Amino acid sequence: MIELWRGEMVESVHAGHAVICDASGAVVDSWGDADAPIYPRSSAKMIQALPLLESGAGAELTPQHLALACASHQGAAIHTDAVARWLADMGLGESDLRCGAHDPYDSDSRDTLVRAGDAPCQLHNNCSGKHAGFLMLNRHLRGGAEYVEADHPVQRAVLEAFEAVTGETAPGYGIDGCSAPNFITTVTGLARAMAAFAAASDSGDARARAMVRLREAMMLHPELVAGEGRACTELMRAMGQQAAIKTGAEAVFVAILPQQRLGIALKIVDGGTRASEAAIAALLIRAGVLDAGHPAAQARLGGPIHNRRGLLTGYLRAAPGFPG
Amino acid sequence: MIELWRGEMVESVHAGHAVICDASGAVVDSWGDADAPIYPRSSAKMIQALPLLESGAGAELTPQHLALACASHQGAAIHTDAVARWLADMGLGESDLRCGAHDPYDSDSRDTLVRAGDAPCQLHNNCSGKHAGFLMLNRHLRGGAEYVEADHPVQRAVLEAFEAVTGETAPGYGIDGCSAPNFITTVTGLARAMAAFAAASDSGDARARAMVRLREAMMLHPELVAGEGRACTELMRAMGQQAAIKTGAEAVFVAILPQQRLGIALKIVDGGTRASEAAIAALLIRAGVLDAGHPAAQARLGGPIHNRRGLLTGYLRAAPGFPG
Repeated sequence: MIELWRGEMVESVHAGHAVICDASGAVVDSWGDADAPIYPRSSAKMIQALPLLESGAGAELTPQHLALACASHQGAAIHTDAVARWLADMGLGESDLRCGAHDPYDSDSRDTLVRAGDAPCQLHNNCSGKHAGFLMLNRHLRGGAEYVEADHPVQRAVLEAFEAVTGETAPGYGIDGCSAPNFITTVTGLARAMAAFAAASDSGDARARAMVRLREAMMLHPELVAGEGRACTELMRAMGQQAAIKTGAEAVFVAILPQQRLGIALKIVDGGTRASEAAIAALLIRAGVLDAGHPAAQARLGGPIHNRRGLLTGYLRAAPGFPG
Repeated sequence: MIELWRGEMVESVHAGHAVICDASGAVVDSWGDADAPIYPRSSAKMIQALPLLESGAGAELTPQHLALACASHQGAAIHTDAVARWLADMGLGESDLRCGAHDPYDSDSRDTLVRAGDAPCQLHNNCSGKHAGFLMLNRHLRGGAEYVEADHPVQRAVLEAFEAVTGETAPGYGIDGCSAPNFITTVTGLARAMAAFAAASDSGDARARAMVRLREAMMLHPELVAGEGRACTELMRAMGQQAAIKTGAEAVFVAILPQQRLGIALKIVDGGTRASEAAIAALLIRAGVLDAGHPAAQARLGGPIHNRRGLLTGYLRAAPGFPG
């Protein structure tokens, strides 16, 4: 699907699966194995946020809250401060999270911790916004504290929504990096779910209205969905408000195209994120929502790769048979 | 070649090529495409150091110097201080390097820079030891300052050694991350070169004696070849002095097995380092030089992978048909 060139030769190659579905859930285009079962990882965060809105628990939430619920954020101050406020507004705190701590991806945030001699906390976890949403749903459902357990009411609600929007019965789940269950679907199931988000309208049912709010929140706040320098943020900015996109670990990427009423899902089989970013850029260009010459697109696909001294070493490009 | 499992399902898969050659240069075993052309990247550093010793320019160098010449180091103080002394002993300094600067991989070293408000310098470049060796050879050859240019006497000497030990004419080169030319060979050519290192003896010619010095230096100083926590360092320690191993960017890995007089080379086609580390562990276990139950082996192949909260999420294992 994606090739890394160095000098006059392909150095590395990434294989993958990609599917585009329309509003009816039908497959419009596909590459690789459309029926491959995958863990959607963080690309499922919009689905995981549906019960929060459908239940009414999140009726008062702002677009900023919703963008954070769908985010794999950098742990910059704009992310951690907002999640901290959200928790405080619920009368909860960092210790109620069950996502675990890791160093923030944002280098300024990490350097600030180093200079202060502080360790990262659970707010820095890239999934802390999703977990704040889980906690808000949990307050509504009156569930126990261990909201990431697969048989907890929060996760049962997520599974119900997940199976409904993918149109598939999940054959199982894995434990995600943030400890929540991550349910299995096919690449087609995930693309079908994204197409449902794309086609949803405010005149629809509670689920459709939740989908509209979530996709709009992501497009309004690309800076909250990931962070500076990241593909989700830079590509959404480059597309204006024409698409909501989301990465997932192990090289999953999804896109919601409301104007086209299309959903896209892809998985690079080796889990290489550079390739999933290049592949989603290729499909967004093909769909007419991303300019191939935009710096944010070039940084993921086709643009020059430079080494430590600024010398050109190569570039990433779509493999023969894949658009781009 | 290598599979990442999560829960009850394979999440990601890495394909690769691997070759084992004997002292005669014959292929003993292979997986994937043994004739695939590759950039050996930093796995060629032992070859790039041959002219330094064969020419007599490095006659007085210690095993520490030679381990650093073959290293992709972490930029910890033990690495940068030693390279700085080596340069000073030649009457040269950091500004004579042509490798460029990047943040040290060693987190203590990086944190020290952050706290001091300092930027990394070329000494922190993981290739600075190799470049110190280039500069020492250059002093002997009386070449110009731009020793990384492909037609410079230093790189012409490297190419001559490279083609001799791989037994192949390089069809071209790419510019490496450190700006030096990186010549193309096949996986078999690289394995043949490593077998020559394995079979070399002190009673041989200047090239053979150089090979012995380099492989012994790497086995004596695993801490200088990479650094704490890194695969080269931890696996060499785990094997005692039974093998010299070296990683290269984009998922190349090589091994020199002197007792078996065997050389190993492998390349993961997608460039995923976790898979090249797992694959070399599998082949070292199969060769009888690495204990599959050793923590350093388990950390690369077969051992549990935990998430941010310490929960088991999966493991890496050899795919069917690949040893391990």
